[in-house]
Amino acid sequence: MAGAANDLKLLGMWASPYVLRVRLALSIKGISYEYAEEDLRHKSELLLRSNPVHNKVPVLIHAGKPVCESLVILQYIDDAFGGAGPALLPADPHERAVARFWAAFIEDTLVKAMNQASWSKTEAEKVEGNKRATAALNTLEAALRDVSKGKPFFGGDSTGYVDIVLGGLLAGVRAMEAMLGVKAFDPVTMPLLAAWADHFGALDAVAAVMPDVSKLVELFITMHAAVAAN
Amino acid sequence: MAGAANDLKLLGMWASPYVLRVRLALSIKGISYEYAEEDLRHKSELLLRSNPVHNKVPVLIHAGKPVCESLVILQYIDDAFGGAGPALLPADPHERAVARFWAAFIEDTLVKAMNQASWSKTEAEKVEGNKRATAALNTLEAALRDVSKGKPFFGGDSTGYVDIVLGGLLAGVRAMEAMLGVKAFDPVTMPLLAAWADHFGALDAVAAVMPDVSKLVELFITMHAAVAAN
Repeated sequence: MAGAANDLKLLGMWASPYVLRVRLALSIKGISYEYAEEDLRHKSELLLRSNPVHNKVPVLIHAGKPVCESLVILQYIDDAFGGAGPALLPADPHERAVARFWAAFIEDTLVKAMNQASWSKTEAEKVEGNKRATAALNTLEAALRDVSKGKPFFGGDSTGYVDIVLGGLLAGVRAMEAMLGVKAFDPVTMPLLAAWADHFGALDAVAAVMPDVSKLVELFITMHAAVAAN
Repeated sequence: MAGAANDLKLLGMWASPYVLRVRLALSIKGISYEYAEEDLRHKSELLLRSNPVHNKVPVLIHAGKPVCESLVILQYIDDAFGGAGPALLPADPHERAVARFWAAFIEDTLVKAMNQASWSKTEAEKVEGNKRATAALNTLEAALRDVSKGKPFFGGDSTGYVDIVLGGLLAGVRAMEAMLGVKAFDPVTMPLLAAWADHFGALDAVAAVMPDVSKLVELFITMHAAVAAN
């Protein structure tokens, strides 16, 4: 079995954007692995033992050693499987720093704003979250213009670290768009990001691991009902 | 001039723990640089131009190219000045991932708890922050036991990435201890961290860049008065 050949196992949950990042990276690099779906209400002994600090997916277990936290895992994949597929981070030290900067921006600014927009209890907080998410996306639109220099991806002609960090959010964004009847990446105000999302989503390696958007919509409806009930 | 020889300039602010990380890394690796103190109430044109997204220090400008965000800068220093002094990150992919995991833990869990403990408006929030900070330090105590395997630093016999990420907080911790008459690293419950802080602080390369604790105490008293007045 291919997963066993690499001695590589991913503990995941199908709807998690953080798990999706790892699946995207492994798919893009063509690295086979065993996938184990976790029930987050009844976490496995293996998950609790492998990530005792956070008890969270994703965890990538390579030759018995666990690696936790999606951004740490992506860099681990680059370090440990340098020979397989395209490198996720560029070789040039300054370009690596720029990629890490934008990954941190997506994590600390965009994800927080999107969560505020989606899961706040009050309408005012949601509106504020939406404003902040739009501002963050506008900043990313400008970054994509500067970094990609006319090429389709943050990584240039091929997808790299930033594409994967942002791409992990794409299924959730598509589900939100379907639910709310809006365009998160407005083709008029964010033409590069809108084109990026289309190009990225159409890649075979990406389509192969993207979760089903209609299933995500169902999950989000259940989650929103739970938030509203609290 | 030595700083000019490397074409390396650091935009900083003397009391910032994030700036201190960069100064620690450059000092430990023996890399000379030009230092420019920023007045954060009147930020320089150079700072605003070099970090247009966050407008924050530290920014390291190398051969005219800015690098922002302390953890990104530390990794940049390792990538760009690999030949100078000890490597900050280990060479082994799994050990690198472990170091990045603990750096993220310090940033996302410990720093947030410490900020809550220090700067919350209500006593209840401060008490909760203190509890969370103590829990985070206990987790780090166990990590130091596992990672250092009897050696004094997270990096083993010499200081590395995690030591520097944590070490950036040390001056502020010492100032808080002086103000409140407490020990943040309890020698009874956290013997390894307490010894780590003593060893780390006593290194020549560290002592050379540590800010003056009594000046920090003065600043914190002013800042607390400002929080209380709001």
